[in-house]
Amino acid sequence: MTETKVERPIILVTNDDGITAPGIHSLVNAVKDLGDVVVVAPDKPQSGMGHAITIGVPLRLNKVKDFFEGAEAWQTNGTPVDCVKLAVDKILHRKPDICLSGINHGANHSINVIYSGTMSAAMEASIESIPSIGFSLLDYSIDADFSAAEFYVHKIVQSVMKMNLDKHFLLNVNIPAVPLDLMNGIKVCKQAYAKYDEDFDERLDPHGRKYYWLTGEFKNFDTGEDTDVWALEHNYVSVVPVHFDLTNYKLKKDLEQNWDIL
Amino acid sequence: MTETKVERPIILVTNDDGITAPGIHSLVNAVKDLGDVVVVAPDKPQSGMGHAITIGVPLRLNKVKDFFEGAEAWQTNGTPVDCVKLAVDKILHRKPDICLSGINHGANHSINVIYSGTMSAAMEASIESIPSIGFSLLDYSIDADFSAAEFYVHKIVQSVMKMNLDKHFLLNVNIPAVPLDLMNGIKVCKQAYAKYDEDFDERLDPHGRKYYWLTGEFKNFDTGEDTDVWALEHNYVSVVPVHFDLTNYKLKKDLEQNWDIL
Repeated sequence: MTETKVERPIILVTNDDGITAPGIHSLVNAVKDLGDVVVVAPDKPQSGMGHAITIGVPLRLNKVKDFFEGAEAWQTNGTPVDCVKLAVDKILHRKPDICLSGINHGANHSINVIYSGTMSAAMEASIESIPSIGFSLLDYSIDADFSAAEFYVHKIVQSVMKMNLDKHFLLNVNIPAVPLDLMNGIKVCKQAYAKYDEDFDERLDPHGRKYYWLTGEFKNFDTGEDTDVWALEHNYVSVVPVHFDLTNYKLKKDLEQNWDIL
Repeated sequence: MTETKVERPIILVTNDDGITAPGIHSLVNAVKDLGDVVVVAPDKPQSGMGHAITIGVPLRLNKVKDFFEGAEAWQTNGTPVDCVKLAVDKILHRKPDICLSGINHGANHSINVIYSGTMSAAMEASIESIPSIGFSLLDYSIDADFSAAEFYVHKIVQSVMKMNLDKHFLLNVNIPAVPLDLMNGIKVCKQAYAKYDEDFDERLDPHGRKYYWLTGEFKNFDTGEDTDVWALEHNYVSVVPVHFDLTNYKLKKDLEQNWDIL
């Protein structure tokens, strides 16, 4: 009789709020029964870093002990995207079975998918042929209640890990900040055209020189009922399938047919 | 008889290599006859910043005098995306007619559209309903020859400014590093699935602690002849129409029909 060794899947966990953020601890809690969890996260908050990579300064990578229950953990001075690259190349020495990023403190729906370090880490994994999901809770506060989020994270990850996944499989999941009994379930959506209408708060420093803080008001320009913003406003967990091919095929065809300088 | 004042279009120019980079001077040279050029660029190199925005530190914005022939210029400590936001909100007080980003020192074809500060600035403009184009030359060197690039930048911008443009019109233009007489013209393409196969150069600092430099080898995994990488290898200027809707509609439909947790 041959003994069959059943290997548990490897789950890479990262985020953009940094390794001390409550959201990443909730993410580990939510999925640690589903595989061997390895955390590789930034050593400080990296919100709004988009798909930044570190090329001008050397990267550090240090093991963190006794910080997560049931998971190995490492921190780096790099961006969320660097974390994924370092995890695969210097820690795991193989591709994990899935990469999970988050749980972000704050929304990453609509156009925010482009600015989000959380989603950029997930997208980096997808580019590297690692199925990946980014999770965000619509609550910025440090003492946000992640319990309903943990329930949905577990449900989604458990279900996805049973699928026959495309190697570039990538989801952007946003979770409303409401208790579990007010949730209406999960809805697959498209990315809304909604964005911040930016403004700058202009101030004077003690030397009389101007400086600016970026501020802004969030506005939804999309009236569709199939968008992530609509779903979240109606207490659904929004799931937007995402890909990294940014080609505008409609405009491509139009230019190919009509552009006189080709 | 009423006098008609003909307003020249306003052309916003930015980049990610910083205001002192030769590429942005070539871009201004190439288009200054087509409108009133206003430069708002980072005060230092910002390559690889992706769609990063500055939220943790205040932004500075200073006028630069006598730096560009035939163009007003401003520099900021922000990212390329911040430059676009500041230009619209604090300098122009209106949307420019077009935003041009570059000319980047180095390729931004294929997957690099996601990491590129050059393209992120252009995409930010597109999100803000400003038609926009990012330009990159396939030569990283400080003394790169931009003369053929200037020819094609002028040709493309002049042609685009005559079109009836969608407000989110966005192109990613890459230019081979060859003399004008070896160019084969302009080709509209899709984004290739080609990327850097990353590696980290591991070293020890004087205190015996490890640090890492991100390195990597560029690999094209896409055999199509309709991609930007193919076009550039065959001495065409590649034009990829880009959009910021990252929804994967194929996977959306598939999940909507088959996912048992919905």
